[in-house]
Amino acid sequence: MAGAAADFGARAMALAERLAQHTETPPGLSCTYFSAAHRAAAADLAALMHAAGMETRIDAVGNVAGRYAAKDKTARAVMVGSHYDTVLNAGKYDGRLGIVVALTVVEHLARAGERLPYNLDVVAFSEEEGVRFSASYIGSSAIAGRFDPGFLELRDTRGISLGDALRQAGSDPATIPALARRKDDLAAYLEVHIEQGPVLLDSDQPLGVVTAIAGNSRYNVSIDGVAGHAGTVPMAFRHDAAAAAAEIVLFVESRCNRTGLAGTVGRLAVPDGAINVVPGRCELSLDIRSGDDVLRKAAVADILTEIDAVARRRGVGIAATPVLDARAVPCSPRLQDALASAIAREGLPVQRLPSGAGHDAVMFDGLTEIGMLFVRCGNGGVSHNPRETVAAADAGIAARVLLDVLRNFQ
Amino acid sequence: MAGAAADFGARAMALAERLAQHTETPPGLSCTYFSAAHRAAAADLAALMHAAGMETRIDAVGNVAGRYAAKDKTARAVMVGSHYDTVLNAGKYDGRLGIVVALTVVEHLARAGERLPYNLDVVAFSEEEGVRFSASYIGSSAIAGRFDPGFLELRDTRGISLGDALRQAGSDPATIPALARRKDDLAAYLEVHIEQGPVLLDSDQPLGVVTAIAGNSRYNVSIDGVAGHAGTVPMAFRHDAAAAAAEIVLFVESRCNRTGLAGTVGRLAVPDGAINVVPGRCELSLDIRSGDDVLRKAAVADILTEIDAVARRRGVGIAATPVLDARAVPCSPRLQDALASAIAREGLPVQRLPSGAGHDAVMFDGLTEIGMLFVRCGNGGVSHNPRETVAAADAGIAARVLLDVLRNFQ
Repeated sequence: MAGAAADFGARAMALAERLAQHTETPPGLSCTYFSAAHRAAAADLAALMHAAGMETRIDAVGNVAGRYAAKDKTARAVMVGSHYDTVLNAGKYDGRLGIVVALTVVEHLARAGERLPYNLDVVAFSEEEGVRFSASYIGSSAIAGRFDPGFLELRDTRGISLGDALRQAGSDPATIPALARRKDDLAAYLEVHIEQGPVLLDSDQPLGVVTAIAGNSRYNVSIDGVAGHAGTVPMAFRHDAAAAAAEIVLFVESRCNRTGLAGTVGRLAVPDGAINVVPGRCELSLDIRSGDDVLRKAAVADILTEIDAVARRRGVGIAATPVLDARAVPCSPRLQDALASAIAREGLPVQRLPSGAGHDAVMFDGLTEIGMLFVRCGNGGVSHNPRETVAAADAGIAARVLLDVLRNFQ
Repeated sequence: MAGAAADFGARAMALAERLAQHTETPPGLSCTYFSAAHRAAAADLAALMHAAGMETRIDAVGNVAGRYAAKDKTARAVMVGSHYDTVLNAGKYDGRLGIVVALTVVEHLARAGERLPYNLDVVAFSEEEGVRFSASYIGSSAIAGRFDPGFLELRDTRGISLGDALRQAGSDPATIPALARRKDDLAAYLEVHIEQGPVLLDSDQPLGVVTAIAGNSRYNVSIDGVAGHAGTVPMAFRHDAAAAAAEIVLFVESRCNRTGLAGTVGRLAVPDGAINVVPGRCELSLDIRSGDDVLRKAAVADILTEIDAVARRRGVGIAATPVLDARAVPCSPRLQDALASAIAREGLPVQRLPSGAGHDAVMFDGLTEIGMLFVRCGNGGVSHNPRETVAAADAGIAARVLLDVLRNFQ
C-alpha cells in the first residue's frame, strides 16, 4: 500500500507539471479558454486518457471526456470531473488536481485490469474560471444541459464572441445542446479539488468532505452623505459617508464571524476623495456566503437592517442593490458518508467543511448526486497564485480515497 | 443706526455682486490668479478704493492695496485684509466679504470726513486659494515678507510658471521682496471672513470672534493585509486591510469628536478592489485640526497608537507617513477682546470659535497682532460652492463692528 501511495502521489504531481507546460505566459501558468495553450492541454489530456485505456473525445466546447467502460456498456455512469482552464498567473492544482487524481486512479485500474460495475467518466472541463468571456462553467454547463445560449454572444477583450471562437476552433455551436447528459444515465458526480483556503492546513488534515457549496449574496452599496470642509465642519455636524461605510464594514465582519459565515467588503472607495474634504459619498460591495441558506439570509437581513440604522443615525442615504442571490448546493449525504468512510479507512479523522468557492459540481445539482473531496493547500491556503501548492502525499491519499469510493460505490 | 446698518449691509452685498461679474466661467464665479477676470477684478477694486478716497496701488503680485491715510502720515498702520481670488465655481463671499466690508467702512469714514489716528490699509490679496499654482497665500505672503522664491518656478496646468505669468502681466519678480511690510510699521492685522461652516448658523449668531487658526496634522496611511478569496478564507484567518481601515476611520471620528477637534479621513480606497476578494491593501488619509496644538498632538499620538494596535491585533502592516504638521496660529487676546466688546455693544452675545480653515491672517503671525471676525454662512454653512450665502444684515453688523473696533483701536 505504501508503494501504491507513493505512485499515486508522484504520478499526480508529474501529470500536473506536464499540464502546466501548456501556458500562454511562460514560465508562469495561464491557460484561458480556447487559447493555443488550452488547445494543447486538451490534446495532451486526451492522449493521457487514451493511453489509460479510455474512450476519449474532445467535445464542441472543449471538454475532454474519457470513459473507462464497464463490462456492461449499458450500465449507468459515475462522472469524476474538474476543470483544466486556469486564471492568469495561476497555480498548477486549481481544477487540474481533480483531473490528474482521477487519471491516476484509472491508470491503476487499467494496469490491474480491474473493471467497475458502471462506466467511469473522467471529464476535464474546458472552462470554469470565467476569465476570457466573464462567464463561468462554460464546460460543465454544456454537459449538465445548462449551457446558456446567450453565452455565444459574449465577447472577450479583443471583441471575439464565444460563438466565433468555437467556430474558429472547428466546433459547431448548434451541437452543444446534444452534449447534455441524461439524468437517468448518471449515477453520481464526484469532484476532487484543492480547498483554496487554510482550513485543512490549519487542522492538519490532508482531506476534507465538502458538505455544501456555499450560497452567495452580493450587493453594491452606495452611501450619500454631505461633503464638507475638513476644518470648518465640526464633527457633530457631519454626515460622513466614509464613517458610515466603516460601520458597515465592521458590522459585516463581526456578524459573519459570529456565525461561521464568510462576509467580505472587497470594494471600498470614496470617489474623488481629498485629504481635506469630509467624504460626501462612499461606495462598497458586500459578499456574504454560507453553506446554509437560512444562516446566509438571516445574516443578510441583519446587515441590511444595520445599514438602515446607520443611515438613520448618521443622516446619510444608503442604497443597497442586490446583484447576486445564489442558493447553497448541498452535497449528497450518501456520497459525503462514502467519502468519510474511505477517509476513515485511511486511518484519518473525518473533517467536513463547506466550500466557499463555486465549483463545476454546482452545475450537476438536481441532475445527479454530488460528492466533493477537498485536498489540503499549502502556503497558508493560497490559490489563484503561482504559490499554490499541494503535497504529493496528500494527492496520493486523495487518489486512494477516490479509488476506495469508486470500488465501493453502489 | 438702523439706516446705517441697512446701508452697510446693502452696500457690501452690492459690491460682492459687482466683483462677481469678473469671472472666467459665467454665469458661475471663477476668478483664479492672474486670469483676465482676476485682472479686471483688481482694476475694479482699485477704482473702488480710489473712489473711497484711498491712495491705491496694484503691486507686483497683484495685491490691491488702498491706504486711508491718517492725518499724521508717519503713523503706524492697521491693515484690514482678505483675498479676492476664488476657487472654481465659487461663492461670492469667501475672501471677498472681508474686502467689501472694509471698503464700506472706509467709504463711511470718508463721507463723514473722519480720520483715524493711524493709517488704515485695506488690502485685497491676489491669491489665497492655491488653485492655479498649487501654492496658497501668494498675495499675503509677499506683503508679510514670506514669499517663497521657489513659488516662481511653480507651473500651472498649461505649463506656465508663476514667474512667467508675473512677467507677462508686466511685473518684475525681483521687486517682490520690497513688498514686505516692516514689523514696526504695522500696529495690527484684522480680517473679516465668512465662517465657511455651520457653527454660527447653528447657534443663531451673526458674528463670532476667532480664537485661533487651527493647527493641522496630515498623514497618508497605507495598510498591507493579505488578499484572499472571499469564499474560502474563513473570517478568523483573515488579515483584511479594509476592516483595519474601518477601525481607524471610526477611531479618528470618536477621538476627535470627544475633544472638540476636527478629524477627517477624506481619502479611503481599496486599490483594485473586487467584490469577491478580501482586501489585501487599503489606503487612507488623515487630517486632524485644532486651535490648540497640545490637544492636536495628543489626538495624533492617540491615533498613531491605535493604528499600531490595529496593526498588531489584525496582523497587518500599517505605515502612517506625515505630510503636514502646521501649528495653530493664535489670535491676539487684545484684538479678540476688542472685537468681543464691539459685538457686545451691538447687543449681541459674544461667541468665540477657532477657525478650522487657513486664512491670510496666518501669514502675519509673528509680524503683528492678528484679529479675525467670522460672519455667519447661510445654507448650512456651505462654502466653495455657488450656494454659499451671507445675509446682508449680517454683513452690515460685521461692518459696524469693524468700524467700532477701528475707532477704538489704540
